[in-house]
Amino acid sequence: MSAVKLEEFRERIRKELDTTVDFWLQHSHDPLHGGFFTCLGRDGEVYDELKYVWLQGRQVWMYCRLYRTMDRFHRPEILEAAKAGGAFLRKFTRGAGSGQWKCAFSLTRDGKAVKIQRTIFSECFYILAMDELSRVTGDKDMQLEAEQMMEQLISWVREDPAGLGRPQLPGDVPTNSMAVPMMLLCLVQQLTEGGGAEVVQKYTELASWCVQQILQHIQRGGTAILENVSVDGAELPGCQGRLQNPGHALEAGWFLLQVSAQQKDEALQRTAIDKFMELPYQNGWDKEHGGLFYFLDVDGHCPTQLEWNMKLWWPHCEALIAFLMAYSHTREPALLHRFSEVFEYTFKHFPDAQKGEWFGYLTQEGKVALDFKGGPFKGFFHVPRCLYMCERILDDMLANKD
Amino acid sequence: MSAVKLEEFRERIRKELDTTVDFWLQHSHDPLHGGFFTCLGRDGEVYDELKYVWLQGRQVWMYCRLYRTMDRFHRPEILEAAKAGGAFLRKFTRGAGSGQWKCAFSLTRDGKAVKIQRTIFSECFYILAMDELSRVTGDKDMQLEAEQMMEQLISWVREDPAGLGRPQLPGDVPTNSMAVPMMLLCLVQQLTEGGGAEVVQKYTELASWCVQQILQHIQRGGTAILENVSVDGAELPGCQGRLQNPGHALEAGWFLLQVSAQQKDEALQRTAIDKFMELPYQNGWDKEHGGLFYFLDVDGHCPTQLEWNMKLWWPHCEALIAFLMAYSHTREPALLHRFSEVFEYTFKHFPDAQKGEWFGYLTQEGKVALDFKGGPFKGFFHVPRCLYMCERILDDMLANKD
Repeated sequence: MSAVKLEEFRERIRKELDTTVDFWLQHSHDPLHGGFFTCLGRDGEVYDELKYVWLQGRQVWMYCRLYRTMDRFHRPEILEAAKAGGAFLRKFTRGAGSGQWKCAFSLTRDGKAVKIQRTIFSECFYILAMDELSRVTGDKDMQLEAEQMMEQLISWVREDPAGLGRPQLPGDVPTNSMAVPMMLLCLVQQLTEGGGAEVVQKYTELASWCVQQILQHIQRGGTAILENVSVDGAELPGCQGRLQNPGHALEAGWFLLQVSAQQKDEALQRTAIDKFMELPYQNGWDKEHGGLFYFLDVDGHCPTQLEWNMKLWWPHCEALIAFLMAYSHTREPALLHRFSEVFEYTFKHFPDAQKGEWFGYLTQEGKVALDFKGGPFKGFFHVPRCLYMCERILDDMLANKD
Repeated sequence: MSAVKLEEFRERIRKELDTTVDFWLQHSHDPLHGGFFTCLGRDGEVYDELKYVWLQGRQVWMYCRLYRTMDRFHRPEILEAAKAGGAFLRKFTRGAGSGQWKCAFSLTRDGKAVKIQRTIFSECFYILAMDELSRVTGDKDMQLEAEQMMEQLISWVREDPAGLGRPQLPGDVPTNSMAVPMMLLCLVQQLTEGGGAEVVQKYTELASWCVQQILQHIQRGGTAILENVSVDGAELPGCQGRLQNPGHALEAGWFLLQVSAQQKDEALQRTAIDKFMELPYQNGWDKEHGGLFYFLDVDGHCPTQLEWNMKLWWPHCEALIAFLMAYSHTREPALLHRFSEVFEYTFKHFPDAQKGEWFGYLTQEGKVALDFKGGPFKGFFHVPRCLYMCERILDDMLANKD
């Protein structure tokens, strides 16, 4: 494919990124209490004032990342919004559960805790936000707080989960759920980015552990990525064990690809592409209607998740990053072809040409099923992260044309 | 509509009830550990061995009810299955959380607790099962256990929910969620059925309280039933406050109708029909494709539940019971017409003519989206309860023809 084609991709991606940034700048800020409204209807109207901590943290991270690394987003209103979001998070999120580090899952508009999840994800996005914000503001306390919470997180995951508040039940055997090592690896990448040998060294063992935990999800003699496995890397019984989440596997794919590039590990690069990109695409792409299924059962049973056959925006975001990054690392034409296929489906179905931003939830046939732009799990994150990363990969490729 | 038409309905309903009973008798029993497999695929194959306590309790209740009240189901294998299910429940469900009464939500095949919900519903279905089973077996201990757990339940709901294990959070204001008074009212009906003045007296105040709590869900000047309201009966902010669940409102409708008949309360009868049946039908029926939506927002925003526009089997079961019972109480032709409309949609879309039993989950357009017959929330309950109740109502009407 020609450089002209790559330039076309970049042009479209740039425009979409500008549109999505404008949409969230215009509609999501709470001038009264700080933080972000994330329940935004098709036109951007706030249809619910609850503030979801995952999305608060992600939006802070994304604003800072854009501000810090892209000239056209190095704008005061983006920095100010990120700082206000960060201040809201710091003021209200922590200490909602037992202990000083447990974070709430959702807050009222004025910051009162509504719900706590007995998982690590609110804390993960809190760390992501604090580390990135501290890079922009130079706030050393904030950076230290991110590192301290990271220590707590590692302890919950690798030593004792009791602090998360989930009762130990005899039938609830510990599992290796792919989200956990993926999130930790993502945090290691964040905390070590641009850091010296010391900080890299600090997290080296953890990064290796995460990679190994992710690789355990290659199952069925190398023919499938399963979302949940035992802590020994064996297949689990029942629906939980047979579950495939193609978008999540693709996201793991580009996480592993980044590690393989840092470590110049060609075998890991091959595994990332063949197992975490090609398999989820082969198993997860809907041959009839196009698009990636949300969930599948590896034995072909019907998943019990009611939304299994819906087409969600974020798996397509992850697939775009994965295939474009894989192409940029290998220059294998087949990978650019995959990117191109996913790009075509995605840009045909998800962007709202009339009102801006992307729809998040389509039926299997590709019809918009839920028309809001933001909801409890869709904020300013997957769309802009995808567009941002793809634009930068394309910038690099176009700047270094053979 | 003529008696011939009613007889046609009854004939079809009888056949479906026989089919569904056969399906579960054949496929769901666990000969090794007792209890029931509820994850049954389209052909009845067990695709997951987890045992869901809601469904265990409901299946015991339904078997006993059929055995006790319908001649053609007064069969030893039904009684034996109910007793084995009851024994499994008693042996493994209780004491999984803090205190002796908290029940698990799901168990391994051999009875080890996997998950506990911080709600009252596992306990509700446990009580339902124990009370009905004790009526068949004459086991007084079991009956006493049901009553004791009921006391605990009432205390959790009306005095102190701390024992459920949910942390009190400042933004998590107590709400009146319709499921709670509905379940308690259902249990009062169960525990007092056929009882003397003493047992009726014991639960009179609770029954009145449940009715009042349910009536608080009539909102928007009497034009909508909202699923969640404040404990004072005011509308709550946001998505939670605007949520409508038409099938659930219809189920509340026939619960209230039963109370109105027992108490010869004509005003309550009118409210049950006009508010809890006609409104959910008007607001919840899909004018384009037919069938009841699962969730709707009263202001027309898109619900955030991904499955909001799906057509589920159980709201249609509740609608059939509601409209037929309302017709039998009032003989208003419009109500039989509604029944007939719902009947037509339901029997056209849900039963699996090839393999028996009903599909549970259709797309908005009426296509089967999940093809299993049993899953984590679909067991031997809504389909047979609906068919059983409708058959009996039709029996009564046909026996007392004007």
